[in-house]
Amino acid sequence: MRHFEDFAVGQTFASGALTVDAAMIRDFARQFDPQPFHLDEAAAADSFFGTLVASGWHTASLTMRLLVETLPIAGGVVGAGVQLAWPKPLAAGETIRLAIEVAETRASKSKPHLGLVKIRVTTSDSTGPVQTMTADLVAPRRAA
Amino acid sequence: MRHFEDFAVGQTFASGALTVDAAMIRDFARQFDPQPFHLDEAAAADSFFGTLVASGWHTASLTMRLLVETLPIAGGVVGAGVQLAWPKPLAAGETIRLAIEVAETRASKSKPHLGLVKIRVTTSDSTGPVQTMTADLVAPRRAA
Repeated sequence: MRHFEDFAVGQTFASGALTVDAAMIRDFARQFDPQPFHLDEAAAADSFFGTLVASGWHTASLTMRLLVETLPIAGGVVGAGVQLAWPKPLAAGETIRLAIEVAETRASKSKPHLGLVKIRVTTSDSTGPVQTMTADLVAPRRAA
Repeated sequence: MRHFEDFAVGQTFASGALTVDAAMIRDFARQFDPQPFHLDEAAAADSFFGTLVASGWHTASLTMRLLVETLPIAGGVVGAGVQLAWPKPLAAGETIRLAIEVAETRASKSKPHLGLVKIRVTTSDSTGPVQTMTADLVAPRRAA
């Protein structure tokens, strides 16, 4: 398990792969984002996207799944805040992978047992990036 | 259904309510964020959070559910990008509600049939804000 001291700017990590199918897209949408272009192929064809696509929040949640599997941090992968963009939607049948890069590391001034690690995470399918994210993670320091 | 022209800076909207229980928190975590503090009460007691809490992505996804129900936009609620912060975690048994405010409206230069509406969304439970978000939404203009 990684501590704050194990991270350095410029480090990169590659995740495993995860494939999303139409049933997964519809199941997530029914619970969290019940809009026609996430629920129904025929309605999606007439929509902004032109085809059934995953909710951006589904893409973000699948990204978290891969991130947790790829970057084991002592105490857990805990984010304080993120910036997200979805340059294009994730379609059914696509397989996603993450490219992760450490952008910044900073000891916490107020909490000497913690550090902050800023990572950039690009989620790509076969056609290119479907999500870009910058996340501030909390990482414990090794005991002195 | 709202079009771009129906939004103005300073408008506010209040959502309905949604209660999250421990089973929902565990179910989401098993799929998307399988970490002890989202999966198991006993393990959570020993963790960074001290109690079972929802994944931040679960809070974000529940927020989307309430947003879609509260703000019907012609063509759908479609976001190009967001900034998110989780000032404190969402615990089992809590009920959340959104306060939504229009922060900016802007016609698209490259796509004359679209406008951009920036909203600020605060997701609060009984103890205060659990998520703050700024989101850039795409809204169609009324036909000329």
